[in-house]
Amino acid sequence: MSEHGNTIVSSVSLLPPETENSSNGDVCFSSAIPGWYADAPPLWPGEAHVYKVEKVLFRGKSEYQELFIFESATSGKIVILNGYLQLSEKDEFVYQEMLTHLALCSIPNPKKVLVVGGGDGGILREASRHSSLEQIDICEIDKMVIDVYKQFFPDIAVGFEDPRVSVYIGDGVEFLKSVPEATYDAIILDAFQEMGPGAQELADKHFLESVARALRPGGVLSTPAESMWNKNFILEDIIADCRKIFKGSVNYAWTTVPVYSSGVVGFILCATEGPPVDFKHPINPIDAVPNHGVTKGPPKFYNSEVHTAAFCLPSFLKGGSSKN
Amino acid sequence: MSEHGNTIVSSVSLLPPETENSSNGDVCFSSAIPGWYADAPPLWPGEAHVYKVEKVLFRGKSEYQELFIFESATSGKIVILNGYLQLSEKDEFVYQEMLTHLALCSIPNPKKVLVVGGGDGGILREASRHSSLEQIDICEIDKMVIDVYKQFFPDIAVGFEDPRVSVYIGDGVEFLKSVPEATYDAIILDAFQEMGPGAQELADKHFLESVARALRPGGVLSTPAESMWNKNFILEDIIADCRKIFKGSVNYAWTTVPVYSSGVVGFILCATEGPPVDFKHPINPIDAVPNHGVTKGPPKFYNSEVHTAAFCLPSFLKGGSSKN
Repeated sequence: MSEHGNTIVSSVSLLPPETENSSNGDVCFSSAIPGWYADAPPLWPGEAHVYKVEKVLFRGKSEYQELFIFESATSGKIVILNGYLQLSEKDEFVYQEMLTHLALCSIPNPKKVLVVGGGDGGILREASRHSSLEQIDICEIDKMVIDVYKQFFPDIAVGFEDPRVSVYIGDGVEFLKSVPEATYDAIILDAFQEMGPGAQELADKHFLESVARALRPGGVLSTPAESMWNKNFILEDIIADCRKIFKGSVNYAWTTVPVYSSGVVGFILCATEGPPVDFKHPINPIDAVPNHGVTKGPPKFYNSEVHTAAFCLPSFLKGGSSKN
Repeated sequence: MSEHGNTIVSSVSLLPPETENSSNGDVCFSSAIPGWYADAPPLWPGEAHVYKVEKVLFRGKSEYQELFIFESATSGKIVILNGYLQLSEKDEFVYQEMLTHLALCSIPNPKKVLVVGGGDGGILREASRHSSLEQIDICEIDKMVIDVYKQFFPDIAVGFEDPRVSVYIGDGVEFLKSVPEATYDAIILDAFQEMGPGAQELADKHFLESVARALRPGGVLSTPAESMWNKNFILEDIIADCRKIFKGSVNYAWTTVPVYSSGVVGFILCATEGPPVDFKHPINPIDAVPNHGVTKGPPKFYNSEVHTAAFCLPSFLKGGSSKN
């Protein structure tokens, strides 16, 4: 981690979150800001988002990771996984809908999808809207995540109720190795590099090769990517690396998620060699034939217009300019 | 202000920023987070963005408002106007470029533009790219803002160097009353409701009527609007009110600005009755005929694709769904 990251941690003690009772009965997270939680990821030194904590709901530790859930004043319940903000109830749907539909709406008639990570169930919930799907597999390493989401976030974990879903508790890296070649139409990686066990390995080249192998020709991968506002973000490098591995089209999209650092999240979409995929122009719109699956209503954020708009990049990302 | 807003102010004392020297020599803003500045606008209770302060650069008070500038650890210089974060060097160009070009690229051959507020010069800088402009007027009430930006932000205040610019120091409301009918092709309001003197009045109905009157038939207004993530934001109401006053097309756009609350900023575009204006499809692209005016290079964020994409709205804003 950078010097600045260390400065945050050591001098202000915003991370890791430690609950204690202050003298006036409020919940405290470090002595810095009593009653508030500070999200200060090391990749974003020198800044933090802080949230007023109304109530601590859960704190637990599995053999893999720590999970911490609190009710915030204005963003609903917020989940912290190993010290990183994973989602808030206020805006989780943006990430879940976009990560899922940017992939599944870009190919005709998807039948088999694999979710790696995603133990909250939100990606399953969104996949459930696609009536063409016959098989929705999920491989999540940590059963605690699934259990806790079912308890505290029924509107997210509802995805597990789709009868097409098969749950595999285990390591995504090992699971992918065991998958026969060309099995899936789409694979959705719902595991941030900074989050959870095995995440580092998930992002590495050999793992992505196993993802490409498990996809049919012209099959697609959707995975979150760093924000374009991060100073270490170099889009050309990411796209070049993915093109080498997947050999089909590769594209970057972005959208708003207020609780994430810099307020945006990026997505990388990759297609394997085969029938060409034009990620920017969805050919399988879900808004055309509404099917809510196990959900209670239509998507809150995603539509075909927003899909295309997400691939429209600022000039500084097109190599024509610099943001600095 | 809401209860939550008061809670922030009174119990954590994040606002207003007060410098003092702590025992270890660091700059302090209240006792809550020594060495960090907390941006906690009352419209966004229960959350705040905090920035590590490397150095305090300026603190001053005119007859109208207070201005506070510091060098942040990772977002460049940050400006606080009357307790509200106005801009950071890291991302100011997004707001300035979009607010300007969403208007000026939507109409053919603009010749006269008025900027109300905008004493930093950034909107002038962007207007300067439009070679069709013959007259760029700006009415800013507070000369201190102009002077301080010229001193600390030469790359923003460079807009004042365009020979087509005329500066009027005075009240924008009074200035608009004195403008002959149908004078301008475009008017750009660069005064947040929360920011600066007269801002409340700027936003009111009578003022907008004087803006409409000062625009030629088919002329356009561009003004920042609240983030779609604010719980009090009701797009239908804003659009209906503006349609009544301007009588032409009215549209809402949004984009990413990391330092603003929720990480996005909204824009309202209004056209007066006359030649129809299709804000979503710019007919006067600046990327087609590069002309940098007084700037050093091309826009960093804006391009015609991003222009159109900014008008693509999430489903929850289209009335088909709710974000809550």
